Amino acid sequence: MRMRHKKNLDSRLAEVSEYLITLRSESLNFNDAKNERHIIDLEKIFGNSNPVYLEIGGGKGQFACTFAQQNPDVNMLCVEKISDVIVLACEKAKEMGLKNVKFVSCSAEYLESFMPEHSFEAIFLNFSCPFPKKSYASHRLTHERFLNIYKPLLKENAPICQKTDNMHFFEFSIEQFSKCGYEISNVSLDLHNSDFEGNIVTEYESRFVSQGMPIYRLEARAK
Amino acid sequence: MRMRHKKNLDSRLAEVSEYLITLRSESLNFNDAKNERHIIDLEKIFGNSNPVYLEIGGGKGQFACTFAQQNPDVNMLCVEKISDVIVLACEKAKEMGLKNVKFVSCSAEYLESFMPEHSFEAIFLNFSCPFPKKSYASHRLTHERFLNIYKPLLKENAPICQKTDNMHFFEFSIEQFSKCGYEISNVSLDLHNSDFEGNIVTEYESRFVSQGMPIYRLEARAK
Repeated sequence: MRMRHKKNLDSRLAEVSEYLITLRSESLNFNDAKNERHIIDLEKIFGNSNPVYLEIGGGKGQFACTFAQQNPDVNMLCVEKISDVIVLACEKAKEMGLKNVKFVSCSAEYLESFMPEHSFEAIFLNFSCPFPKKSYASHRLTHERFLNIYKPLLKENAPICQKTDNMHFFEFSIEQFSKCGYEISNVSLDLHNSDFEGNIVTEYESRFVSQGMPIYRLEARAK
Repeated sequence: MRMRHKKNLDSRLAEVSEYLITLRSESLNFNDAKNERHIIDLEKIFGNSNPVYLEIGGGKGQFACTFAQQNPDVNMLCVEKISDVIVLACEKAKEMGLKNVKFVSCSAEYLESFMPEHSFEAIFLNFSCPFPKKSYASHRLTHERFLNIYKPLLKENAPICQKTDNMHFFEFSIEQFSKCGYEISNVSLDLHNSDFEGNIVTEYESRFVSQGMPIYRLEARAK
């Protein structure tokens, strides 16, 4: 997603600081990230011990906020690397008066340096950038290098739930999940004409559906 | 595939007997099939030790015969349970003067009682009946009960190559391969608009493609 640089970004972020998790700078000293992990405390962050769901690449936060609103007894942690975008997500959460959603600005490749293991009920990958060029395949959020990072974060038998409108990205994802020892289930090659219930439709998704494009979805569990 | 009963079936089968493998009736005494296996001898059947490919549910033999014609240095063994159909496949092979294709009339669930293990370079499942009703799922040729039968027949790292025009059958197949510990690769959700080369297009397939329907394909290897 390409965004114009937001005016007054710092002051706007300050206004929604309650929604933003600030990582200790050491966590993001990525040269020694694996040696010096600064794990965040989910109970402290959310003020309760409710189950926590993780979205990676949450963009403007529409899915995360809707999910949090629909499920008040769980917590939603949403990771997005672009801080110009995350401010919009935080503002949306504040506007909706949500207490159970938090955002963190970070690239997915550094999750392991601050995310606690065996902690998440599910990971959501919604309409992640497909990086269509083959030479950029390693940037796709279902590339095996990411799938191996996600694996220890998930609770036992917890799924990664992926949705995308991009056919080749979905083909690639099936292959990568399979290669990395995930079991794939609940595959849908046309989600909006399937019997799947409870789908949260984002703006981006509804635009594609209105054009008659299929939405692809799967769940994958580490074996 | 529903077929009218062929006239003079026995005499027509006799005409093409060189293409038909006759199983010892004991092989098909299915009550004790696992105890009394009567394994066929591929070298004896084909008269050489060339690599052998297996198609399951080969229908009228168009794929098997084309594959055999295009690959004279390998052998093609094609299984089809309906003998009214298999006679057409044998007649086609004879008409094409093929020496490297044979047919056997049998249900896939009894393969293990006569097929040698670790013997096949690949298994092809082309446009198998999708059995759309959920209550018939166990009849689908990618149901786990079949995938577990195929596994020991394949040589190490040999693929099962599946093609279908049925979206829900393909979704089901991905899940079943994954559940049974196969690694899925070379997934195509629109084969005829992909960069896959060397596809053998059957009549059935070309009819679907001409209607603008996507063809789904994958490869799966036992891990």
